[in-house]
Amino acid sequence: MGDLEIRAATAEDLPAIVAMLADDPLGAQRESLDDLTPYETALERLAADPNQHVVVAVRDGRVIGTLQLTIIPGLSHKGATRALIEAVRIHTDERGSGLGSRLIEWAIDTARRLGCRMVQLTSDKTRTDAHRFYARLGFTASHEGFKLSL
Amino acid sequence: MGDLEIRAATAEDLPAIVAMLADDPLGAQRESLDDLTPYETALERLAADPNQHVVVAVRDGRVIGTLQLTIIPGLSHKGATRALIEAVRIHTDERGSGLGSRLIEWAIDTARRLGCRMVQLTSDKTRTDAHRFYARLGFTASHEGFKLSL
Repeated sequence: MGDLEIRAATAEDLPAIVAMLADDPLGAQRESLDDLTPYETALERLAADPNQHVVVAVRDGRVIGTLQLTIIPGLSHKGATRALIEAVRIHTDERGSGLGSRLIEWAIDTARRLGCRMVQLTSDKTRTDAHRFYARLGFTASHEGFKLSL
Repeated sequence: MGDLEIRAATAEDLPAIVAMLADDPLGAQRESLDDLTPYETALERLAADPNQHVVVAVRDGRVIGTLQLTIIPGLSHKGATRALIEAVRIHTDERGSGLGSRLIEWAIDTARRLGCRMVQLTSDKTRTDAHRFYARLGFTASHEGFKLSL
């Protein structure tokens, strides 16, 4: 098994990324592999934003994981910067391999290196396995996560 | 009672903003009015970022509310942009006046105008009054909110 690389996502990675976003009980309802144009547009916007870090985990030339890390300056907590993790996905074949931990640890290390004082994320209440996973990595489920669709 | 104005926060608003951030059971433990320098530095960074909207609500020249809205592009949900609300504070004298709803509705309207498909926020599990407030405004507590201090 080759080394794992975690690097910025490029347009060439989008088919693999979108396939992972869709290969999920919740994601299957809301993603579309038929037309990648909206994903390409979004990735261009993300790549131009220095506070955005969309990465892929690659092994032996194959994209097997992804997440988005957003760096968010703020006033509260004495002007603390925080980091938000979104869109964490691990390829089906790689689940249980420790890759999820590697990706989240990359996000935590990157957040720390960029001066963040906190890392936060929300996880759908139905994803109970994910909740145990984040608790093992040191996260505390201290907050309610509210969403409003527009 | 004069009209309410919601506008971008400036350095001159910081003493009032920080006083509101500190005037709270959770905020009292983590804010400091003695030295505004870290808040000034953070506000400069926020003001330079087109995806950041730190606003104050002002009536009769007095700052009576604040929140931070962050616009976050993303790949999931077919390249949907989302908005994150943080650091919502209402002056003690104004609680129960409907100002909180006005501020959150401003955030929702701004998010919609900027093309967001979702608005999200987390609220400490001890803030049960806030949870009822967000539910009344249409938010769903669908997610667990995880935090990790660095």
